[in-house]
Amino acid sequence: MKVTNLAEVKEMIGRVVDGGKASGGFNNVVFLACGGSHACFGIGEYFLRKESKKLSVYNITANEFNCVQPASFGKQSLVFCMSLSGKTPETLNAAKLAKEKGATVVALVAEEDAPLAAVADEVAYYGIEIGNTADVQNQYVVLALANEFLNQTEGYDKYGDMMTGFSRIIDVCENAKKKVQKRAMQFGVDHKDEPVVYTLGSGPNYDVAYMMSICMLMEMEWVHSSSIHCAEFFHGPFEVTDPDVPFIMFEGVGPTRCLDERALRFVRNYGKKLTLIDAKELGIDTLDENVVEFFCPVLLWTVALEYSEGLAQAKKHPLLMRRYMGKVDY
Amino acid sequence: MKVTNLAEVKEMIGRVVDGGKASGGFNNVVFLACGGSHACFGIGEYFLRKESKKLSVYNITANEFNCVQPASFGKQSLVFCMSLSGKTPETLNAAKLAKEKGATVVALVAEEDAPLAAVADEVAYYGIEIGNTADVQNQYVVLALANEFLNQTEGYDKYGDMMTGFSRIIDVCENAKKKVQKRAMQFGVDHKDEPVVYTLGSGPNYDVAYMMSICMLMEMEWVHSSSIHCAEFFHGPFEVTDPDVPFIMFEGVGPTRCLDERALRFVRNYGKKLTLIDAKELGIDTLDENVVEFFCPVLLWTVALEYSEGLAQAKKHPLLMRRYMGKVDY
Repeated sequence: MKVTNLAEVKEMIGRVVDGGKASGGFNNVVFLACGGSHACFGIGEYFLRKESKKLSVYNITANEFNCVQPASFGKQSLVFCMSLSGKTPETLNAAKLAKEKGATVVALVAEEDAPLAAVADEVAYYGIEIGNTADVQNQYVVLALANEFLNQTEGYDKYGDMMTGFSRIIDVCENAKKKVQKRAMQFGVDHKDEPVVYTLGSGPNYDVAYMMSICMLMEMEWVHSSSIHCAEFFHGPFEVTDPDVPFIMFEGVGPTRCLDERALRFVRNYGKKLTLIDAKELGIDTLDENVVEFFCPVLLWTVALEYSEGLAQAKKHPLLMRRYMGKVDY
Repeated sequence: MKVTNLAEVKEMIGRVVDGGKASGGFNNVVFLACGGSHACFGIGEYFLRKESKKLSVYNITANEFNCVQPASFGKQSLVFCMSLSGKTPETLNAAKLAKEKGATVVALVAEEDAPLAAVADEVAYYGIEIGNTADVQNQYVVLALANEFLNQTEGYDKYGDMMTGFSRIIDVCENAKKKVQKRAMQFGVDHKDEPVVYTLGSGPNYDVAYMMSICMLMEMEWVHSSSIHCAEFFHGPFEVTDPDVPFIMFEGVGPTRCLDERALRFVRNYGKKLTLIDAKELGIDTLDENVVEFFCPVLLWTVALEYSEGLAQAKKHPLLMRRYMGKVDY
């Protein structure tokens, strides 16, 4: 079974929490992964940092953790590790190191026989096959794990709204995928010759902007790119704005939407190449306003994949083509 | 007095710690600023996260904090805010919000009559005038504050080595400035027509790479740029590497140097436009190996300013020229 359902997540986190009680409970949560997986942990970090009254919450790129660990790291740490292949050496090393230091380790992988799963105390599965629904997307699984952990440790008054959100976001994503098909293809046609494309986002959607930049644009399409946090935009980066410079805005719904709106106004005034991917317009506000912000990255990433495919087709540069990754030594 | 000396820092942190005891002590430290100041807080975050056994440590861009605060934020929070002008509206609002929520606020500003200073419980000063020595650089002051705070709360076994480091780094920086003069001018000549320049770094030096990218390249010279963490480089970004693509590597000394070395090897193999700014070659390893990593950003930023000036001269684009910042509404 590659799919983790919410009932299994609840049971698994129950075992983790019971196990943690033996060493006095968890006082910090550390997410460890690389690249796209590191970015997908951003929603876990955002959710727990915003909602937990007690935890320290850090999302650290795995190989930096292999060199430097927080002094607070140890038996009272709960680690989530993620790797699609389950073989990423940096993440595998980080999981082993975390175990050596006494932490509890939960792995997120796509294959049951993944080496990362063998290192971990518990395992959750996700999938990235074409046609997958949102409930097997890694960000969805990360959010489900974080929601359960918070509720089973501190208690969480929005737990019910979150559970409703998990059921509703699946259809929201399916509908949005259909809605953006034509736009995504047009995006590809319009941007196929652009040498540089910036991405913008805030709150939990900054991580979507980062992932779009490093995975889809730089890694897959060899396009120069940078992700800019909307709140940082006005403190330097916005000076590159020009009618010739393309921006993709990943706009969320929730408390940081005002940051997105401010950056949007500026790019509309001084730029001419804006692509807006707006969670609200794509139907996410059928979710409860208490919790809708946490589901935006799941929707925005679903849609980002369509835009990436549109670009790949227009550029005639398949998403899986690489010149270095897995081809040369590094 | 714009200069904060270490004895004043010690006294001031003493008052902060005594005040904090009244509400049960501090359990988290939150750094709040925007852009370059936000990046300069990176060394404080890195230092306290690595060395503190008890604290949660977050470095948050100020306007995101204005929209979303961690649930753990409140009376047990110590906030550091920074703004060169002392007037940055987002940072000023964040400081006010932090006070409303019961936090203790320390401001770092350059002018005694800064509005940010008026909001704060305590104030430290720094300077950015040409010819300033490292002891008035903001990262130096941030590190001094963090070192004192850690020692006066948890106790810090490297405190003595740190104090020696603060005295030695001043001369290291002065010598390095002279050493790179010609290289910095040559960098400008070689890069004056580059449309895109990437920066690389790891550990506390990632923040220097970020600052070089958003402040010097994007804001001041209107050059497209992105900062890439050396550990993330191999999980996407490295696919843009090409003989035509320029990289600036900010290489540190310490546990993450191996991450820099790995990225360097790759860029040397597959790129042709590498600018290496190596803290070791610039003389930082006269500092004790226990603590040298924490001083690298102070040195690397000192040197980065010379490279920025070299680029500005070669491009005939003065560092202070802006088209939007402070000129249009946003």
